[in-house]
Amino acid sequence: MPEGHITYTSENLTGAVLARIAPDASPRMRQVMTALVNHVHDFVREVELTPEEWEEGVGFLTELGRWCDDKRQEVILLSDILGVSMLVDAIAHRTHASVSETTVLGPFHRENPPVMQNGQNMSPGVEGERLDVAVRILDEDGAPLEGAQVDVWHTSPDGFYDSQLGDAHNMRGRFLSGPDGLVAFPTVMPASYPVPHDGPVGRLLSAMGRGPMRPTHVHFWIKKPGYRDLITHIFRDGDPYLHDDAVFGVKASLVTDWDAPKAEGKPATLTYDFRIPREDAA
Amino acid sequence: MPEGHITYTSENLTGAVLARIAPDASPRMRQVMTALVNHVHDFVREVELTPEEWEEGVGFLTELGRWCDDKRQEVILLSDILGVSMLVDAIAHRTHASVSETTVLGPFHRENPPVMQNGQNMSPGVEGERLDVAVRILDEDGAPLEGAQVDVWHTSPDGFYDSQLGDAHNMRGRFLSGPDGLVAFPTVMPASYPVPHDGPVGRLLSAMGRGPMRPTHVHFWIKKPGYRDLITHIFRDGDPYLHDDAVFGVKASLVTDWDAPKAEGKPATLTYDFRIPREDAA
Ligand SMILES: [Cu+2]
Ligand SMILES: [Fe+3]
Ligand SMILES: [Fe+3]
Repeated sequence: MPEGHITYTSENLTGAVLARIAPDASPRMRQVMTALVNHVHDFVREVELTPEEWEEGVGFLTELGRWCDDKRQEVILLSDILGVSMLVDAIAHRTHASVSETTVLGPFHRENPPVMQNGQNMSPGVEGERLDVAVRILDEDGAPLEGAQVDVWHTSPDGFYDSQLGDAHNMRGRFLSGPDGLVAFPTVMPASYPVPHDGPVGRLLSAMGRGPMRPTHVHFWIKKPGYRDLITHIFRDGDPYLHDDAVFGVKASLVTDWDAPKAEGKPATLTYDFRIPREDAA
Repeated sequence: MPEGHITYTSENLTGAVLARIAPDASPRMRQVMTALVNHVHDFVREVELTPEEWEEGVGFLTELGRWCDDKRQEVILLSDILGVSMLVDAIAHRTHASVSETTVLGPFHRENPPVMQNGQNMSPGVEGERLDVAVRILDEDGAPLEGAQVDVWHTSPDGFYDSQLGDAHNMRGRFLSGPDGLVAFPTVMPASYPVPHDGPVGRLLSAMGRGPMRPTHVHFWIKKPGYRDLITHIFRDGDPYLHDDAVFGVKASLVTDWDAPKAEGKPATLTYDFRIPREDAA
């Protein structure tokens, strides 16, 4: 056996991989890849991953990318159901207490939704219970913000987004807030719905004995120059899946009572005051 | 704010994800997913992964699957360059000291290679330095094994596998060992070569300041009913990349001197005694 050749073992291999990162790699690249290699190797060692399981994992990751197209993002879905998306969210937003909370973007936002006016029905031709939306866009101090761009989207009363039904846009719109910061319009009551579960992530959920359901919610993406984007949902209180959201997206401050106005014979109403931080806020 | 809704934080989210694994999930699934969630969450917390970096990661994993086809396996390549493949190998084989060592399969094995006889040229029409291969297949006690199926494959003298040059099979073959356990044939001297680095994994290597090269080697996959498969390489001593293999596949016992016979005017020769374990070996 020739001299001077290292044989890597399960103990010294991790160090060998880390030692290969070049001195001139960016400090952040070094930090991220060092942590990634350490944690992935620790995972493999901890469970003593078998060659057969490794092969299954390779197949899973390969399939993941193959399910992705312009209407389906299986990688984000995996991140969502493992709580990784909300963990990244929690870390990014843990310092901003005075503003509205964020949650996952989800895979159903679409570029260039129909441009709508306040008062315009966001779900033309869709049958179901009426839901009025009346939200205000405010700054951190509670002053109304005019002209904020507000993308809104939600499911049908059957729990399907428009993109799951065909190519036409519906149950989504892009509004501008009025002088009082108000965005107000009628739409139809959305429903709880399963995340797409006919692919590899659905198989993983089943294998863990987990359900695919998300509680009823309306998505909001608020943009205003000089302010930070706010991507969030508002959830309907009373939904049976609030404590079992497949993607861990529920936050207490984002759950509101939509049904109280019905006691007075009015339509169900989603009201909310969004407070968005300035771009330069701490 | 309605009562009873949890808001997940970067501290309590991991436990919430783990608590969702159902009691009737298989114990191994529970063990693997618990470790995976713990290590991935620890990674995200340790580096405080930003939403922009998360998005980059999602894009990377999505692209990974899209590069895969029947001639390219970018997920295995990622596993290889992060040392994960060799770690799985090290764990699987750390108990078998009396038999030949294993290394990565790599992405260039092909199903149904040309069936060849001992003595037959494995690289017809390929110009380059002659290499004679003369290996023996033995059991753990050193007794010769007749009739073992031995797949052999290597690059051209330019460092390309046949599949990188076209659809024709060359520089690969399937042999049966003779009564003395021998597989012997002439071929052409392979070369060091870069792992495929025009995709996302190549970008990652660059970002870490790492090279893509692998030292010169010949692949062997030995199968014999009643015995465990042996998947390995034999490396050429003196290769400048032996200490810098992009996939960490070198083991001291797999490096041999191919060039000694040239001093006596004979062709370069790769000799090796492979010892393969019985299926029921510990
Ligand atoms: Cu870890
Ligand atoms: Fe949604
Ligand atoms: Fe190779």
